[in-house]
Amino acid sequence: MFRETHISLTFNSKSVGVLMVIGFVNGNVYVSFKPLKKVEAFAVANGRIVFIGGNSDVENIVRISGGTVVDLGGRTVLPGFIDSHVHIDELGIFLSAIDLRGTKSLRELKERLRKALDSVETLWVLGHGWDQELFEEKKWPTRWDIDEVVSHRPALLTRICLHAAVLNTLALKVTGLEALNSLNVERDEKGVPTGVIKEEALEIAWERIRDSISVEEYEKLILNAMRFAASHGVTTIGFTGCNVKVLKALINLWSKGLLITRVRVYLNPGKSWEVVHLLENIGFKRSFGDEYLKIMGIKILADGSLGARTAWLSEPYTDNPSTSGVPSIPPEDLRKLARRTHDLGLQLSIHGIGDKAIDVILDAYSELKNVDRARHRIEHASVVREDQIDRMSRLGVVVAVQPNFVVSDWWALGRLGKKRIRWLYPFKTMLEKGIAVGFGTDTPVEPINPWQTVYAAVTRGKFENVAHYEDTKNERLDLQEALNSYTYGSAYIMFEEHSLGTLDVGKLADFVVVDRDPFTVEEKELKDVRILETYIGGKKVYTA
Amino acid sequence: MFRETHISLTFNSKSVGVLMVIGFVNGNVYVSFKPLKKVEAFAVANGRIVFIGGNSDVENIVRISGGTVVDLGGRTVLPGFIDSHVHIDELGIFLSAIDLRGTKSLRELKERLRKALDSVETLWVLGHGWDQELFEEKKWPTRWDIDEVVSHRPALLTRICLHAAVLNTLALKVTGLEALNSLNVERDEKGVPTGVIKEEALEIAWERIRDSISVEEYEKLILNAMRFAASHGVTTIGFTGCNVKVLKALINLWSKGLLITRVRVYLNPGKSWEVVHLLENIGFKRSFGDEYLKIMGIKILADGSLGARTAWLSEPYTDNPSTSGVPSIPPEDLRKLARRTHDLGLQLSIHGIGDKAIDVILDAYSELKNVDRARHRIEHASVVREDQIDRMSRLGVVVAVQPNFVVSDWWALGRLGKKRIRWLYPFKTMLEKGIAVGFGTDTPVEPINPWQTVYAAVTRGKFENVAHYEDTKNERLDLQEALNSYTYGSAYIMFEEHSLGTLDVGKLADFVVVDRDPFTVEEKELKDVRILETYIGGKKVYTA
Repeated sequence: MFRETHISLTFNSKSVGVLMVIGFVNGNVYVSFKPLKKVEAFAVANGRIVFIGGNSDVENIVRISGGTVVDLGGRTVLPGFIDSHVHIDELGIFLSAIDLRGTKSLRELKERLRKALDSVETLWVLGHGWDQELFEEKKWPTRWDIDEVVSHRPALLTRICLHAAVLNTLALKVTGLEALNSLNVERDEKGVPTGVIKEEALEIAWERIRDSISVEEYEKLILNAMRFAASHGVTTIGFTGCNVKVLKALINLWSKGLLITRVRVYLNPGKSWEVVHLLENIGFKRSFGDEYLKIMGIKILADGSLGARTAWLSEPYTDNPSTSGVPSIPPEDLRKLARRTHDLGLQLSIHGIGDKAIDVILDAYSELKNVDRARHRIEHASVVREDQIDRMSRLGVVVAVQPNFVVSDWWALGRLGKKRIRWLYPFKTMLEKGIAVGFGTDTPVEPINPWQTVYAAVTRGKFENVAHYEDTKNERLDLQEALNSYTYGSAYIMFEEHSLGTLDVGKLADFVVVDRDPFTVEEKELKDVRILETYIGGKKVYTA
Repeated sequence: MFRETHISLTFNSKSVGVLMVIGFVNGNVYVSFKPLKKVEAFAVANGRIVFIGGNSDVENIVRISGGTVVDLGGRTVLPGFIDSHVHIDELGIFLSAIDLRGTKSLRELKERLRKALDSVETLWVLGHGWDQELFEEKKWPTRWDIDEVVSHRPALLTRICLHAAVLNTLALKVTGLEALNSLNVERDEKGVPTGVIKEEALEIAWERIRDSISVEEYEKLILNAMRFAASHGVTTIGFTGCNVKVLKALINLWSKGLLITRVRVYLNPGKSWEVVHLLENIGFKRSFGDEYLKIMGIKILADGSLGARTAWLSEPYTDNPSTSGVPSIPPEDLRKLARRTHDLGLQLSIHGIGDKAIDVILDAYSELKNVDRARHRIEHASVVREDQIDRMSRLGVVVAVQPNFVVSDWWALGRLGKKRIRWLYPFKTMLEKGIAVGFGTDTPVEPINPWQTVYAAVTRGKFENVAHYEDTKNERLDLQEALNSYTYGSAYIMFEEHSLGTLDVGKLADFVVVDRDPFTVEEKELKDVRILETYIGGKKVYTA
C-alpha cells in the first residue's frame, strides 16, 4: 500500500539534513599501500568514502551534517581484502560438514555424528576430518559403522586428507559406487564394498552431492560461507566457476538483500557453452549488475594440477618423464570459446597452471581484437617462463594468484626439477614487468584467511623449509606489494579499481580493523594478524 | 597496462581529502512535494545527496572537503521527472525523421528531403509532418515525387496526422505493400499504387522499418532520444515494451557508459514467451542491474485503444454499440503469463484501457501469492470503475497514467456516453484510495514534455473546452499531487522510492533547474515552465 508516511514539515531552510554521515576518527588508517598513504580519520556517506584526513575535519563534517562518530581508538584500519579466486559454493558445502577432526575412536565418531545430525539441513549428511590413525580401534570406519547412526539419508565423511572418505550404505547405492568396479571403491575379502572410497570415486560422490543440493539449500550454504569470508576480512570475492543453479541462488540472495560480501561472478560455460548462449541471447556485457553482484564473464579450465601431474607442461615432469600433463580442453575449442566470449564483451578467466597451458591461453588471447582493454585473466599461473611474462605484459593479460600454493606445493621441485623451479609463482617478476596481479586463495582449496596468504607471499616457505625456497626467494614480495595485490590488484583485475581496493575518496567503504599494525611486526608474525571488525559499505558485518 | 600512476605521498594525517563534494547553494529547492519540503542548499557526493539545509552549512562542508560550490542564483530546483511509461526506441525513430512540418509545396518537400538526406544514418529514410492542404499544388505526394529524390533507399514520409504516409517505390516493394490488396494502399485509376498508405498498411511498413534497424543503429537512436528526454527534465524512464534487440542496444550503451537517463526496462514477452524463458533460464529477479539500467519485468497488452474502439469495455461503445472492444490476449493466457512472471520474481506491467480489460488484469493479479508486495502495474488505466479502484487498492496494484490523454481523448464522451464518462482517468479518486500513481507520457504517443502533462493533470481540458471536462473535473489534481506523482509516485511504482523521486539525503542527485517557481504561477502557465538545466547524479547533462 502506498500511503503518505512522512511527517509534514513547514518550509524551513535550515537544519533538515538527515543523519547519514559516519565519521571514523582516531585511527591508524591505511588508505592505500602503493603509494603507502595514511590518515587518522575518514567519513562515509551512502556507503562510500566522502572524506579522508584529520580528526577535526571529520568531526566538523559530522557535526554539521548531524551524523555519528566512531572512535577507532587508535586501532589499525586497512582496505577490505578482495579474494579474486573463490569457490563460494564449495566453501559453503565444506563449512556445512560436521567437524570430525581429532576424533579419538569409532565410538566417538558415531557419537559426534549423532549429536550433529539434527542440525544438518541438506539431504546429504557430510562430515570431515577423521583420521583412523587417531582411533583407539586403529581401524578404518565402514559403511556399517555409519549406518548405525545414519541410514535413511546418504552420508559421506571425508578423511582429514580429503583424498578418502567413508560412505554409508544408502550413499553407496545412490551414487552407484556400490556397483563400480574400481580400486578406489574398497571391498572386503568377500568383495563387498566397505564404504571406504578414494580419489576418482570420491569425485563421483561429490558430483552426486552437488546435484542433490537445491537452489534454496545453496542460498543457505552460500550465506554461511559469506559470513565466514567476512569474518576473515574478505569483503569482495571473485567467484570463479559458478554454475547456473548457484547463480540463481546468488540472485535470490541478492534479491532478498542478503548478500554479505560483494560477488563478481565468472560462469562455467557448461555443456555446449550453455551459459555463453544464455548471456548472448540477452546481450549481457561484462560487469552487468550492481555493487553487490556483477556478472563478469566465463571461467574455463585449460589444464589440471601440478599435484596430480595433470598441469600441462611444455616438457615432461621431472619425477615422471612419461607425461607432460594434459590439456583440459582441446586448444582449438579453447580458442573458439575465448573468441566468442571476448566478442560478447565478457571477461575471460582461464585456469592455466603449466607453462604449455599458459602458451595456449596466450595464443588464444593474442588473436583477440583490442585485447589490451579486456583484462583477460589467467588463474593460478603456476609455472611461467620469462618470455611468457613479457608476453602477458605486452598483451595486458592479468593474473589471479594464490600465494599459499607456494607453501602447499612444497613438493614442486620434484615435479619441475632444478631448471624450471625458478618459474614457479614468479610474483615479483610479474609486478616488475607491470602485470596486474590479484591475490586470492582458491578456497576451499586453501584457507580463506588473507593473512596466511600475505605471509606466504612475503616468506615463500622460508620458515617451513620448503625445498624451492632458495631457488625462488627472489620472488618474495614486500608487505606493501602483498597487501596492494590483495586489495588494489584484485580490484583491478575485476575492473573495480574505481570503486574498491583502496580507501580513497569516492570508493566503497569496505574496510577491516585489525589487532596490530602489519607494518610494525616481524614477517613471521604476519600470519597471526587478526581481524577485529569487518565493514562493507560502511556497515559493520563482523565483530570478533 | 597496469603501472603505478599515483604520485607517492609521504605519511600525512591531514588534508589529503579529494575534491568530491559539490554544494548547490542559494536556491529555491523543492526537496519533495508531499510533504512540501523546501531548502536553500544541498550537497552532493558520489552522485547522491549527502546534505540538505542552509547555505552556510553547505558552504562549510564544501570548505572542509575541498569541493566546489555552485550558486543557483535563487533559481528553482525540483527533483528530476520520472516518466514511467516511455517507448524510447520509438521516440528515437520518431526523432530521426526529417522534419517536414510546414512544407508549402511538393517542390519544397523534395528540396527539404534532398538537403537532409546525407545526414540520415539508417537504411530507411524517414520524414514526418507534411500536409497536402498546405501545398500550393493542393495534391497528395506520390511515390514518383519521392523517387525523384530517393530511389536507392526505402523512404517513408508520414503525414502530420500520423495516420497516413507516402512511400517511394523501393519502400512499396520491400514492404510487400505494392502487392497488398487493401483499401489502405491507395491506387490510381489504372490500379497502380500511388505510394500513399494508411492505417494498417502503415503499421505493416513500420514493422518492416523496425526489423531493418540494427542494434548499432538503435544505440544511436536511443542515445538521441535520451538527450531529448533530458532536455525536457526527464531523468529516469520506465521503458515499457522493450524487445531483445533494443535491450542489447541498451546494454551496449550501458557498457560504454553512454546512458544518459536512467532506464528501467519492461520487456515484451515476444513470441512464445521468449524473454520470459531467457530471464528464467538465468534466474533473473526484478531490478537486477545498476542505477542506470535495471531489468524490472514483463510488459503485456490486455487490450487496444479507445480511439480505435479496441479498448475492451464491459458494455458496448456508446457510439458503436456493435462492439465492446477486444482483448489483445486470451484472458487465460494472460493469467498464465502473469503467474509465471510473478513466480519468477519479476514485475508485471499490463496495458489495460477498458474496464473489462482491467477486470481481467485484476482477476489475474488477485490469484497471485503475496501480490501486495509485487507492485504489479496497470498501464494507462483509462476507464476505471469505482469498485475496481477499491480492488486495486486492496491488492496493492499500482498504475502508470498519462494525464495528457485526458486532453488528447477529447472525443471520449462519444465513446463512453454520459454514464461512464466519470470513470475516465480518475486520478484524484485513485490517490484518495491510496493507490500508487506514477505519471508519464507514452511518448512518442504524447509529447515527452512533463509540463504539458502536469498542466493536463491540473486542468483536465478546462481551457481546451474538452467535452468531458465538466463530468470529470473532480478528478483534477492540485500541483503538489501532480508533481509528486511525476517524481515520488513514478519512483514508487518502479521500486525506486529509496533512491529517486525526492531530493532527500541518500537519494541520487537527479534534479532540474526551471525558469520559474511552478507554485507561484497561474495553472494556465504551467505548460510554459521551461527546463534550464538537468542534472543526473549531480552531473549536468543538459543546459538550455
